[in-house]
Amino acid sequence: MCQPVRVSASVPAPPVCVLGLGLIGGSLLRAAVRAGRRGWGWNRSAPTVDAARADGFDADTDLVAVLRRAAADRALIVVAVPLPAVDATLAAIAEHAPGCPVTDVVSVKAEVAAAVARHGLRDRFVGGHPMAGTSQSGWEAGDPDLFRDAVWVVSADDGVDPQIWSQVARLALDCGAVVVPAESAEHDAAVARVSHLPHVLAEALALAGAAGGELALGLAAGSFRDGTRVAGSAPTLVRAMCEGNRDALLTALDETLAVLNRARTELADRGTIADLVEAGHDARRRYEQRERWTVTGIEPGEDGWLEKLRDAGRRGGVLRP
Amino acid sequence: MCQPVRVSASVPAPPVCVLGLGLIGGSLLRAAVRAGRRGWGWNRSAPTVDAARADGFDADTDLVAVLRRAAADRALIVVAVPLPAVDATLAAIAEHAPGCPVTDVVSVKAEVAAAVARHGLRDRFVGGHPMAGTSQSGWEAGDPDLFRDAVWVVSADDGVDPQIWSQVARLALDCGAVVVPAESAEHDAAVARVSHLPHVLAEALALAGAAGGELALGLAAGSFRDGTRVAGSAPTLVRAMCEGNRDALLTALDETLAVLNRARTELADRGTIADLVEAGHDARRRYEQRERWTVTGIEPGEDGWLEKLRDAGRRGGVLRP
Repeated sequence: MCQPVRVSASVPAPPVCVLGLGLIGGSLLRAAVRAGRRGWGWNRSAPTVDAARADGFDADTDLVAVLRRAAADRALIVVAVPLPAVDATLAAIAEHAPGCPVTDVVSVKAEVAAAVARHGLRDRFVGGHPMAGTSQSGWEAGDPDLFRDAVWVVSADDGVDPQIWSQVARLALDCGAVVVPAESAEHDAAVARVSHLPHVLAEALALAGAAGGELALGLAAGSFRDGTRVAGSAPTLVRAMCEGNRDALLTALDETLAVLNRARTELADRGTIADLVEAGHDARRRYEQRERWTVTGIEPGEDGWLEKLRDAGRRGGVLRP
Repeated sequence: MCQPVRVSASVPAPPVCVLGLGLIGGSLLRAAVRAGRRGWGWNRSAPTVDAARADGFDADTDLVAVLRRAAADRALIVVAVPLPAVDATLAAIAEHAPGCPVTDVVSVKAEVAAAVARHGLRDRFVGGHPMAGTSQSGWEAGDPDLFRDAVWVVSADDGVDPQIWSQVARLALDCGAVVVPAESAEHDAAVARVSHLPHVLAEALALAGAAGGELALGLAAGSFRDGTRVAGSAPTLVRAMCEGNRDALLTALDETLAVLNRARTELADRGTIADLVEAGHDARRRYEQRERWTVTGIEPGEDGWLEKLRDAGRRGGVLRP
C-alpha cells in the first residue's frame, strides 16, 4: 500500500486560536476560516483588533480571555508573535490554556523549541514555519491566499505527539500550503542558507552600490535590483530572523566567506573566476530543476514514522492534501 | 540659456556598421534601422548572418568587405563582439576602415580603451556601454526595444573628439536609451559595484543553497530566487564581464568582504547584525529613490565640456533626446 500520508481526511480539525494578527497570523486566520475552520485571534494592539473585527473576524486584545476560550474549546493555538515576544506568550499559554495543542509560525525553530521546553509545553507543541511573506506587514497586508502552494515546514522532532503533528500539518494543508517535515535544527540550517544568508548578502550588496554614489546607482540594472530587493525589508524583521538563527547563519556565512575569499585569490592571482562561476551556475540549475514529490505511505505514529518523514523531507518530499 | 545638450537634432547620423550580431549588436542594428538609420552588420557565423538576412537585415560574414563599405560610406562602426575578440576586430578596423568613427558596446571600458590606443584608433573612438541585456543571447534573442529607457554610458575620456562623442550619443538616443557621460575608469568602478559584484554574490549564494541539499533548495523562497537569478547567466558571459574588469571588481569585492567580516564578528560576539542591516536598508532606499535628471546647457566641444559632462554624470544626470 502506497497511500499519501493521511493528515487531512481523518485528522480532527479543532478551532484555531491565533496569537498575533500581523501578516502571517492575520493571513492564517483568514485562510483557516475560509477553509471552514472556526477561528479567533488575539493582538495586543487595539487598532489591529479593530481592523480585524471590521473585516468580520473574531478578535480581542484580552489574552487571558482568548486563552481561556481556547482551553474551553480545545483549540489549536498558533503562536504568531515576533520572536522576542514568544517567551511571554508561551508563559501565558502554560498558565491559561493547559492541555491545548500548540504550534507556531516563527521563522526559526530551534530557539522556539527551547523556549517551549522551558515552559513545560514540549508534549503538546509541534513547531511550524510557513515559508511565505511579502515586504509588507500588519493585519492589513494579510491575504488568505498567502500560503497557496507555499512550503510550510512542520517540525518532526523526536518525541512529538503524532496526533498533534497531524493536526498542525492539516492546518497547513487547509491554508493551501504543502508540508515539508524536518527536524528543527535541520530547518534552521536550511533557512540560514536560503533565507537569512540572502538577506545578509543583499544588505552588503546594497552598501557596495551606494558607496559608488549616484553614478553607480544610476547604472544599476536588473542584477543589482534583484540582488538587493530584500534589503528593502524592515530592518527589525531582518534582524529578528537573522539574529534568531545566529549559529546556523554563522555557519552558512563562514562557508560563503571562504568561497568568496577563494574566488578573490583566483581572480587576483590568475585573472579568473571560472571555478566560482561554473559551480554557481550548476547550483542555480539544480535549484531551478528541483522538484517536489509527494510523500506517501507514512502513518504518523507508526513505527519509525518520524525518521521516515525526516528522510523524505531531506530528499525534497512534501505532504499534500 | 539652459537648453538640453544638443546631440540629437543637429548631429549627423551616418550609417551604422555593426560588428557582431549577438544580443546587443543584433538589437542595436534592429533599433537603429527602425529609427530610420541605414545600417548593416557583420558576424563570423554564417547561421547568424543567415538569420539576420531572413529577418530582412543587411548582413555578411566577410569582415573586410563590410569594413570597406563602412569606409566608403563614412559609417559609424560599432564593435559588438565579445571582449576576447575586440583586439582582432580593432586591428581589422585600423587596416580596412581608416577614418571611420568607432564605438563599442562592451561592458568594460578601460580595457577596450587601452586596446583602442594600441591600435592607434584613439582619435576616432568613443566608448559606449548600453546597460541592457537578458539572460538570453544570440541574434534570435535580439529586440529593437531592448534599449528603451535603458542607460547607455558614453565615455567622456580626455581627448575624445566632440563630434564623434555627439554621434555616439545620438546613436544611443536613437535606440531609445538615455545617455550617461562618464570616464572609462569611473564607469568600470561603478559597474564593478552594481553589475559584476552582484554576479559574484549570486554565484556564491547559489552554492550555499545547493550545499544544503534538497531540503534547503525546497525551502528557498523569493529572497533566494531573486538573489541567485543572475547565476543562471551563461558562465562564459559572466566570466568575460568579471574577468575583464578585474581590478575594479577586486576593489569592490574586498570592500564587501570587509563589510561581511565585520558583520560576522558582530553577530558572533554580540549577537547582532544591526549595523549591516540598517546601513543596507538605507542604501537600498537610496537606490529606490534615485532620480535621473536631464543634463542641460553643455555643448560638446565648448570650453570644459568633458569635465562638465563627467560632473553631471557623477550626480545622476542623463542626456535625453
